[in-house]
Amino acid sequence: MTKVYLAGPDVFLPDAADWLGRKKAICAGFHLTGVAPLDDLPDPPAAWAALPEWRQLALRNEAHIRGCAAVIANLTPFRGPSADVGTVYEVGYARGLGLKVFGYATVAAPFLARTLASIGGGRRDPDGSWWDPDGLLVEQFGLFDNLMIEAAVTDSGGTMVHEDQDRWHDLSVFERCIEAAAATLLQPPLSG
Amino acid sequence: MTKVYLAGPDVFLPDAADWLGRKKAICAGFHLTGVAPLDDLPDPPAAWAALPEWRQLALRNEAHIRGCAAVIANLTPFRGPSADVGTVYEVGYARGLGLKVFGYATVAAPFLARTLASIGGGRRDPDGSWWDPDGLLVEQFGLFDNLMIEAAVTDSGGTMVHEDQDRWHDLSVFERCIEAAAATLLQPPLSG
Repeated sequence: MTKVYLAGPDVFLPDAADWLGRKKAICAGFHLTGVAPLDDLPDPPAAWAALPEWRQLALRNEAHIRGCAAVIANLTPFRGPSADVGTVYEVGYARGLGLKVFGYATVAAPFLARTLASIGGGRRDPDGSWWDPDGLLVEQFGLFDNLMIEAAVTDSGGTMVHEDQDRWHDLSVFERCIEAAAATLLQPPLSG
Repeated sequence: MTKVYLAGPDVFLPDAADWLGRKKAICAGFHLTGVAPLDDLPDPPAAWAALPEWRQLALRNEAHIRGCAAVIANLTPFRGPSADVGTVYEVGYARGLGLKVFGYATVAAPFLARTLASIGGGRRDPDGSWWDPDGLLVEQFGLFDNLMIEAAVTDSGGTMVHEDQDRWHDLSVFERCIEAAAATLLQPPLSG
């Protein structure tokens, strides 16, 4: 079965193992194998045992991603206007490897609106550009998050789904994302 | 000359071109060629001209990174407790390609303190774990940012430098980072 890596701050949920089990069940319903960050590796290098826990976790996540065809990234804004940086790192890592990226979020508001809310306003120039209180430009391309993230999804042939739902308790948006991923990843070979 | 990619939210500064020019001059002082996100590509694919600007910017940044030996990432917290997600994406992309990553920040406070300040406190369990108002766990490994970022620096053989300075107007911490990068990247071959 085609494997997909389930990236997201979901690992910080109090019931993360159960929650990721529900995500895997949804994947299975679309003939995909969901790989969770918390999953054990079948055969981790013995040398890792001597490393601090955080390094073992990072190496394990990267190994999981290398074994997958795509990353399904929960890009729901996390403690700020943007997605969780751990998830964004994994999206970048996947693109460096040439994997496909599919993203979803349980929030509909676009990046600009979320950023302006988070910085408490900002200053607008006559040309329409926005600047934050530190004097740094606010990105304004009409996207859902930073352009590198959205481009990773687009350039890889992936799909982005976002909709207002119960932020950390909804799986309907994830399910739509998995449906799109399955349609892309499991296309039958063209018959000749 | 060995090329290093200058990742960071510095591109959002009002004087970004001048600022990145100063960063390049520091690189040159250590016999490294700094490549800025704003630099033109020598020979961009003609097909890109038809793409929207944000996609051209992302493809150009990725092409720049592919041509470099390392990424020098400005990981100064940006509109939240973590680094700029565009920068973090580029760090992940670099690691997917096997590049080295060097990070720096003009802020000294560790990730846990910054996160607790940003979420307005949180709830602490008797076992010492912290939970945010949404009920999600706060990462607590004594690191400077999310473990994926710090592991990318460590696993690649890079260096992380952080120190309290004028957040968006200091280059002394960047210079120390470049000095460390040069020492690693420009090691003379072992004579036998």
